[in-house]
Amino acid sequence: MTTSEAFPVHPAATSSAHSTAQPGNLVLLLSFDQKRFIIRLEPGRRTFTHLGAFVHDDLIGRTWGSSIETTSGYRALLLEPGLADLMRQLKRGTQIIYPKDAAYIVHRLSLRAGSRVIEAGTGSAGLTTALAWAVAPTGVVYTHETRPDVFKVARDNLERTGLLPFVRMYQIDIEAGFKASDVDAVFLDVREPWQYLAHVRVALRPGGFFASLVPTANQAIELLRGFDAHKFADVTVEELLLRPYKPSAERFRPDDALIAHTGFLIFARCISDEEDVMRWQKRERLRYEARIKSQVENEAEAARRAADREETGKRYPRLPLP
Amino acid sequence: MTTSEAFPVHPAATSSAHSTAQPGNLVLLLSFDQKRFIIRLEPGRRTFTHLGAFVHDDLIGRTWGSSIETTSGYRALLLEPGLADLMRQLKRGTQIIYPKDAAYIVHRLSLRAGSRVIEAGTGSAGLTTALAWAVAPTGVVYTHETRPDVFKVARDNLERTGLLPFVRMYQIDIEAGFKASDVDAVFLDVREPWQYLAHVRVALRPGGFFASLVPTANQAIELLRGFDAHKFADVTVEELLLRPYKPSAERFRPDDALIAHTGFLIFARCISDEEDVMRWQKRERLRYEARIKSQVENEAEAARRAADREETGKRYPRLPLP
Amino acid sequence: MTTSEAFPVHPAATSSAHSTAQPGNLVLLLSFDQKRFIIRLEPGRRTFTHLGAFVHDDLIGRTWGSSIETTSGYRALLLEPGLADLMRQLKRGTQIIYPKDAAYIVHRLSLRAGSRVIEAGTGSAGLTTALAWAVAPTGVVYTHETRPDVFKVARDNLERTGLLPFVRMYQIDIEAGFKASDVDAVFLDVREPWQYLAHVRVALRPGGFFASLVPTANQAIELLRGFDAHKFADVTVEELLLRPYKPSAERFRPDDALIAHTGFLIFARCISDEEDVMRWQKRERLRYEARIKSQVENEAEAARRAADREETGKRYPRLPLP
Amino acid sequence: MTTSEAFPVHPAATSSAHSTAQPGNLVLLLSFDQKRFIIRLEPGRRTFTHLGAFVHDDLIGRTWGSSIETTSGYRALLLEPGLADLMRQLKRGTQIIYPKDAAYIVHRLSLRAGSRVIEAGTGSAGLTTALAWAVAPTGVVYTHETRPDVFKVARDNLERTGLLPFVRMYQIDIEAGFKASDVDAVFLDVREPWQYLAHVRVALRPGGFFASLVPTANQAIELLRGFDAHKFADVTVEELLLRPYKPSAERFRPDDALIAHTGFLIFARCISDEEDVMRWQKRERLRYEARIKSQVENEAEAARRAADREETGKRYPRLPLP
Repeated sequence: MTTSEAFPVHPAATSSAHSTAQPGNLVLLLSFDQKRFIIRLEPGRRTFTHLGAFVHDDLIGRTWGSSIETTSGYRALLLEPGLADLMRQLKRGTQIIYPKDAAYIVHRLSLRAGSRVIEAGTGSAGLTTALAWAVAPTGVVYTHETRPDVFKVARDNLERTGLLPFVRMYQIDIEAGFKASDVDAVFLDVREPWQYLAHVRVALRPGGFFASLVPTANQAIELLRGFDAHKFADVTVEELLLRPYKPSAERFRPDDALIAHTGFLIFARCISDEEDVMRWQKRERLRYEARIKSQVENEAEAARRAADREETGKRYPRLPLP
Repeated sequence: MTTSEAFPVHPAATSSAHSTAQPGNLVLLLSFDQKRFIIRLEPGRRTFTHLGAFVHDDLIGRTWGSSIETTSGYRALLLEPGLADLMRQLKRGTQIIYPKDAAYIVHRLSLRAGSRVIEAGTGSAGLTTALAWAVAPTGVVYTHETRPDVFKVARDNLERTGLLPFVRMYQIDIEAGFKASDVDAVFLDVREPWQYLAHVRVALRPGGFFASLVPTANQAIELLRGFDAHKFADVTVEELLLRPYKPSAERFRPDDALIAHTGFLIFARCISDEEDVMRWQKRERLRYEARIKSQVENEAEAARRAADREETGKRYPRLPLP
Repeated sequence: MTTSEAFPVHPAATSSAHSTAQPGNLVLLLSFDQKRFIIRLEPGRRTFTHLGAFVHDDLIGRTWGSSIETTSGYRALLLEPGLADLMRQLKRGTQIIYPKDAAYIVHRLSLRAGSRVIEAGTGSAGLTTALAWAVAPTGVVYTHETRPDVFKVARDNLERTGLLPFVRMYQIDIEAGFKASDVDAVFLDVREPWQYLAHVRVALRPGGFFASLVPTANQAIELLRGFDAHKFADVTVEELLLRPYKPSAERFRPDDALIAHTGFLIFARCISDEEDVMRWQKRERLRYEARIKSQVENEAEAARRAADREETGKRYPRLPLP
Repeated sequence: MTTSEAFPVHPAATSSAHSTAQPGNLVLLLSFDQKRFIIRLEPGRRTFTHLGAFVHDDLIGRTWGSSIETTSGYRALLLEPGLADLMRQLKRGTQIIYPKDAAYIVHRLSLRAGSRVIEAGTGSAGLTTALAWAVAPTGVVYTHETRPDVFKVARDNLERTGLLPFVRMYQIDIEAGFKASDVDAVFLDVREPWQYLAHVRVALRPGGFFASLVPTANQAIELLRGFDAHKFADVTVEELLLRPYKPSAERFRPDDALIAHTGFLIFARCISDEEDVMRWQKRERLRYEARIKSQVENEAEAARRAADREETGKRYPRLPLP
């Protein structure tokens, strides 16, 4: 851990100590026209927007949940940003992992304060933010990103949210392996995750958790093949759909649009390399494949018999000749 | 916090210190027929199942991810249980909140190590498990449950998973309010959450996070009405669908069935009671209601004009008489 | 029926008689940049587009499925428009009913060649197109629309597709009832369908089919109430989600976006007004309501007992006084 | 057409001529416990059920939508069966195509009275029922099924619903091609539909409609490959989800479960074999593939540059030696 305190503190912990916005706090300003701004309060500073400037000194000491005024007289609501707000307001260099997926990945990887987790690639640090939030103040995220431009965006984002102390960032290709070992969990968001399963084995502590997110069925299929080759068991593939509703009491209904696909979420456990992995496949898969197999055999058999009958019919007429 | 250590430790932290199963560890045993057992290892003990007994002394010291044998010669895979495994194996007295929803609630309430969160009702402690996991080792869950039988099941479940030290349990009705105040977040899983919004205001610290889960549209509508009356803003209503896939590389496809509905997830922020709440409604709602309003007016106008024309047409024919 | 032939013919029937595009045929032109144009071939005519003009004489006699050239040298594929193409290319004055919903409504109303069906309102005639297609050449659609501007758009659309002979259009308000009776089915796409259930009873033949589409849960709830009051049974409420996929063999995956909500599809059968409608409610509803009722009672009982215990506790201390 | 009438009549047409159940009519009996029975009325006959017998003579002449009594005194509602009811009550030898999918297939194939459509395999004749309903009374379904047992079930089902006159059934393998040509549309529900695309070309009239339903992503991918090889354009892949709701005005909510996956619905148009099929791919696919291509190139370029920099860094140190 990179913090120097005797007793490490979560970066979000400071805000809850006070009922008012304090210098150094990240604040969320929700304008009357429903735009969202996240800024860090610094005495003497001003933040300029299309609605006029927010004067930081006017915000410091104001109760959370009250409204303030810009220099142009527009009102905005002063709120503490939640984790979801932080993720939404990240500067983006690449497509980010959506909060719905990030929350579920954190859950399925069983992350907690103190966990050590590997991530590749970093991207815009959307998921990194959620991982660091979950493992702080005593855990670490080891994140890997090849592209220097993307790496910089990610670093800026983590610095801005105050989560950088809980992240070790590596601007490298993972072809040669990861920069940490004996970790609790590994998450891969790369084009060909199946290429790195041998490295995952090396980096994960025995029994650790593995997850990946891939957008296409072709990739999911390749990764499933990789699991058999590299001995990962207890595999699940899932997809999360978040359906937003109009929050109207008079006309309650689903929204017209939704994010229809972000990716297939794939989870697995790395087992001992002395085990026969097929033995531990999901029962459902075994049952399913057995059923298909017998179905194919039945149909082949039925076809064979039908052909027999037909041929027989031709050569040996059923009715005996007189 | 109820732990007595100088430096509090997450209950899941112990297992990661070793690459082998230790006395006192919770272990997940995945049998060859894909049944799942979670047991706590105690020297000298045996756990009996339909596959024969697991001899704890045989498991202690075994590497995570290797397979072991029951007294009847059946093999099972030895894994650390993840949070999702713990939630799945709870004893159930009531319907539980599903992992997909629990993960998202933890995310949207911005819970972290050290958070203090109120929950009602406890139910079978499914969500309580996820909340305690997220706030441990330095936070607390204050959970409330009316029914004594349900309360007992919840207590047993939390004891079994080792998360009880991070939970304060109250077997009371919340009609008179909650047993904690100045908390970071409140979650309500009760039949009529709108009845308790005044209590939520009192218990939440300024700017705190509120969430609820209700199964019916009627309840969602009532809660949305309650938000206007009790000054909660930044409201979102969402629904999460988790779609499982067959993890088969040869026949990759969605499962035949899914949990089609668990509930509407409703999130809001409690704002200062001096604010005009309508000002801070989601722009989308305002826009939507304005659109509907103008649509209704247009139609009324069109109908009125049509009626005018018709009447006019009857009385004053368009073509002048000769 | 409005056609004068001895043996009526479906308007789409003509095209299949030839393997080439004929004068009078509707044709779909799919341009290289995937724009779609539907035009009716007339000798000597030209249709101008951003890709240059389609010279009708060049198209007449060309085999379906071959490509042709515009005057500017761009190529386009010559196809017969399907029903889905016709619906997609309608001029729109209002939101249209989507093909996925239209197809299911036609199915659930059991429409066929010869059916007589009432519709209100007409809107842009999207659903009218699908209804007329299904009942032609021997059936009729009776459609009602209040707004004169919308009525005109609908009429133009039906004329253009050649389906007008199978539709009787009424520009009236349905407050006073429908312009047909003894019909096989009624479909309502109006803001408050529950207001017209008495009229539906009068217009439907005994045992006829009823359907409606409403966008909000509030409307669905009102309509369900109306069914109890007006004796409609065998009620189902359903929603259809159409998920498009990228048609790519190398990167097969769901599209990023989908139409997330069009409306609740509600179907019911009008039963004899001497029947007790509650007797014929869906078993599921009865069972569900019974379950909720007993749950509420159990909880009330549990709460009462808990209160008793508490009160008792107060008045009669458990430990006897010395 | 196989009917001998001068003017062919849809089998469902007879019922609408009367407001009461007539001999020969198919009737749907909805019992008080929500079981559904479909029987054909024959004077003098009785149908025995767990609720006692339905005496046909008691039903004949009763108004549709009224209730009748069994010999054991139980009441049941007398309704005309809709197309959806017929499909639900089929005897099943194999998995059937669901009504939601059948309705959409009929729509996308642009079927109408008079259409001629090929189907393989027949299965339990679920889709055959919907196809025959749509093309009757002047069209024909040519359906092919290999397995004799399945063929028999299908035949019985079609006989029972009265739709057999509109279907030509072939108990053959389609390896050698279809038993009809110049048809308007072809639908394949077979394990490897891509194997038969050459036969589809031969059987379809120019510009005809093609559809298939496959359960797995692997099959969808193979079929998409087949389209490029066999010149099918205007390809769409879609999936329909039908979400049922509890029809309760007091507790309106989605059902707990739904059919989560039936199959991928794949539609395409067969174009002239002289055309370059890639030219007519969906713009979206072309755009998508171009985007992925450039993304891959960008990343390769970025990686190359990073490698260059690194190597350069090694050989030519930035700071000049003193």
